[in-house]
Amino acid sequence: MPYYIGDVIKSRRRLIARTPEEFRKSGIDVMLRTSVEGIDPAKGIVTLSTGRDLPYDVLVIATGADPVSPKIPGLDLEGVFHLHNLTDGLKLKSYLEKNKCRKAVIIGGGVIGMEMAEAFRNLQLDVKILDILPAPGANWGRELVQYVLEEIRKHQVEFLSGTVALSIEPGSECLLSVKTSRGEFDADIVLIAIGVKRNISLAESIGLNMGETGAIQVNFSQRTSLENIYAVGDCCEVFHRVSRRWTYLPLGDVANKQGRTAGKNIGGYPGIFPGVVGSRSVKLFGLEIAVTGLNEAEAVKSGFTPVSFFMWGVPVSHSLSKDEKLGLNMIADKSTGRLLGAQCVGVEGAVNRINSLAFALWNDMDLEEIGYMDLAYSPAFGGGWDPIHIAAQNLAKKL
Amino acid sequence: MPYYIGDVIKSRRRLIARTPEEFRKSGIDVMLRTSVEGIDPAKGIVTLSTGRDLPYDVLVIATGADPVSPKIPGLDLEGVFHLHNLTDGLKLKSYLEKNKCRKAVIIGGGVIGMEMAEAFRNLQLDVKILDILPAPGANWGRELVQYVLEEIRKHQVEFLSGTVALSIEPGSECLLSVKTSRGEFDADIVLIAIGVKRNISLAESIGLNMGETGAIQVNFSQRTSLENIYAVGDCCEVFHRVSRRWTYLPLGDVANKQGRTAGKNIGGYPGIFPGVVGSRSVKLFGLEIAVTGLNEAEAVKSGFTPVSFFMWGVPVSHSLSKDEKLGLNMIADKSTGRLLGAQCVGVEGAVNRINSLAFALWNDMDLEEIGYMDLAYSPAFGGGWDPIHIAAQNLAKKL
Repeated sequence: MPYYIGDVIKSRRRLIARTPEEFRKSGIDVMLRTSVEGIDPAKGIVTLSTGRDLPYDVLVIATGADPVSPKIPGLDLEGVFHLHNLTDGLKLKSYLEKNKCRKAVIIGGGVIGMEMAEAFRNLQLDVKILDILPAPGANWGRELVQYVLEEIRKHQVEFLSGTVALSIEPGSECLLSVKTSRGEFDADIVLIAIGVKRNISLAESIGLNMGETGAIQVNFSQRTSLENIYAVGDCCEVFHRVSRRWTYLPLGDVANKQGRTAGKNIGGYPGIFPGVVGSRSVKLFGLEIAVTGLNEAEAVKSGFTPVSFFMWGVPVSHSLSKDEKLGLNMIADKSTGRLLGAQCVGVEGAVNRINSLAFALWNDMDLEEIGYMDLAYSPAFGGGWDPIHIAAQNLAKKL
Repeated sequence: MPYYIGDVIKSRRRLIARTPEEFRKSGIDVMLRTSVEGIDPAKGIVTLSTGRDLPYDVLVIATGADPVSPKIPGLDLEGVFHLHNLTDGLKLKSYLEKNKCRKAVIIGGGVIGMEMAEAFRNLQLDVKILDILPAPGANWGRELVQYVLEEIRKHQVEFLSGTVALSIEPGSECLLSVKTSRGEFDADIVLIAIGVKRNISLAESIGLNMGETGAIQVNFSQRTSLENIYAVGDCCEVFHRVSRRWTYLPLGDVANKQGRTAGKNIGGYPGIFPGVVGSRSVKLFGLEIAVTGLNEAEAVKSGFTPVSFFMWGVPVSHSLSKDEKLGLNMIADKSTGRLLGAQCVGVEGAVNRINSLAFALWNDMDLEEIGYMDLAYSPAFGGGWDPIHIAAQNLAKKL
């Protein structure tokens, strides 16, 4: 019988009604809130915290990643939260419902921080984001960063760049006070969202190979260095098709695909997970923010000589445009003209462009071809020359 | 000095202020409302209707296409319009402004017919579309056709399928009366939009090779069978990357790219126009309608053995969805698993999916890879498994 050992069952609509009992009826033994104490790969046994031994023929390690905490005092105070899984989300929601919160401080200006800034603003909280970096998406080029910052400010969220949190203490006016390198800030709620760290202790304990990134090394079938042990999700590496290196990219859609690949192989249907090109998106108030491939810094690190071109376009044809701005930054390799990455921000149409360019990266397309790509043109959805064409043609001139 | 002989200067915002005089200052002699009576390719001379002879070293034929008229009486009556160029549009607009119109009949349910149905409804006209085909986009599969028809009806436009217009006559209650195979319909305005016909008489008169489609044969540099004569736009063929055949696809964005390619080659910068994959879109009231590649009938005609999969998805993640429907039909070749085409209709997100799949077609991707493609996932813009993934994986199972 297959076992599932984990924290929660996914909250997706179609699954939420399925209890461990229902899974058991389909022949899957689901053990929630159970931890694994040890693995004996020679004997093929997993030992649970309950003392029970589970034999296995094939093992899948999907231990994920844990949120990183800054090394500062006060993390255990009431009102301080992480947002990592469904349980965290429910706790945070319940706290907001039970307490009259007016001020929120978010430590970390990444995707989680930005999405939660919007959620807090929707509840009329006063919101500050503290980040040690100079800006959100600091590697996307000046114009896009500025555009994102404007949107944040337009919604009365304060973004404090280059700010290091030093401690969280009980407050006087509010429940909490966050001491930082740029002063003290009152808060009724503090959210820590400075990233995640791969959870690899179990894998290390049985001597599985780790990759250069420090995450579990896998092959294209999601097999680890031990043949009957697979790893999937935020605990393992993934192949990056642009840099041609195994990298670490803890994202939900990637984890899904890795899980499916492992499952197919275990079930006797060989298949590979062909890797990623680094596509991501986030909605921030009225903006679509989407990126794919490498940014300039990553391109240099991967041995390319990047050239980039930035443009403001419109997501629809000029004749129909109400001057909605669409900012597109495109990066290519100077020696080959091959596209390396792109970032796009706009009221609409940004995810559309980035998904298209993700396919271009997937297929190693160069700027010449992208500049003549056959997109589904009509005035309501773009110009005869789309920002994708214009950026590719202009970038090609800089090679 | 380069000459431009044509009907109107493009109305695009940045160009509309440029008069023939201004073009002349930049060294281009623009002759509007001038026709060409003959070409002598041996001597390199174009003879104008004014009698003037223009010598040329290189000639570009961009004679486009003309609207097709049904062979019925009454086309010359007041209130009967084509919509082909800016002049037609201005005439139609002025007619609507000067006359109190209540009823419009559109003959032809293609893109122009649908866009004009929306425009007429915005002016509160009663609108009927007559089409000889059973439905708009009759080759897209039952579900999508039904979805489009529902949207048309929701906006009080009547779509009369399998209806042949027999004559247009002066009316009694309205200015006009359209007699059809399904009865008579009053109209204050009638729009003829049953398609276009390549304008190739000049090209034929000098013996240029025509392709199998009947349009001017060109190579990848847009050269015709005479080395110093190029052809671009709706008068010539274009290479279809999916069927691997030269085809006829009179679309504005394609014409733009062909023009640019010819211009580069004439200017001494060799370059090819790599062809199309058949991407198109149209906005119809609240719907995005987009297609790319071949439909099933075209796939069979091109020698493939098509299998298709249709699904209803949502354009955002299930957790954020308000049950906006996104219908996606995907077609692949049974023997190779190669994607052949797709059609998508939805309130939002349809063009996004089709642009992505256009890149997939451009690069000959198969369903295996498309099923694991790295899209810019976030809940606001799709699920971890996008309709693109789900359709590709399900279609792969049917191979």
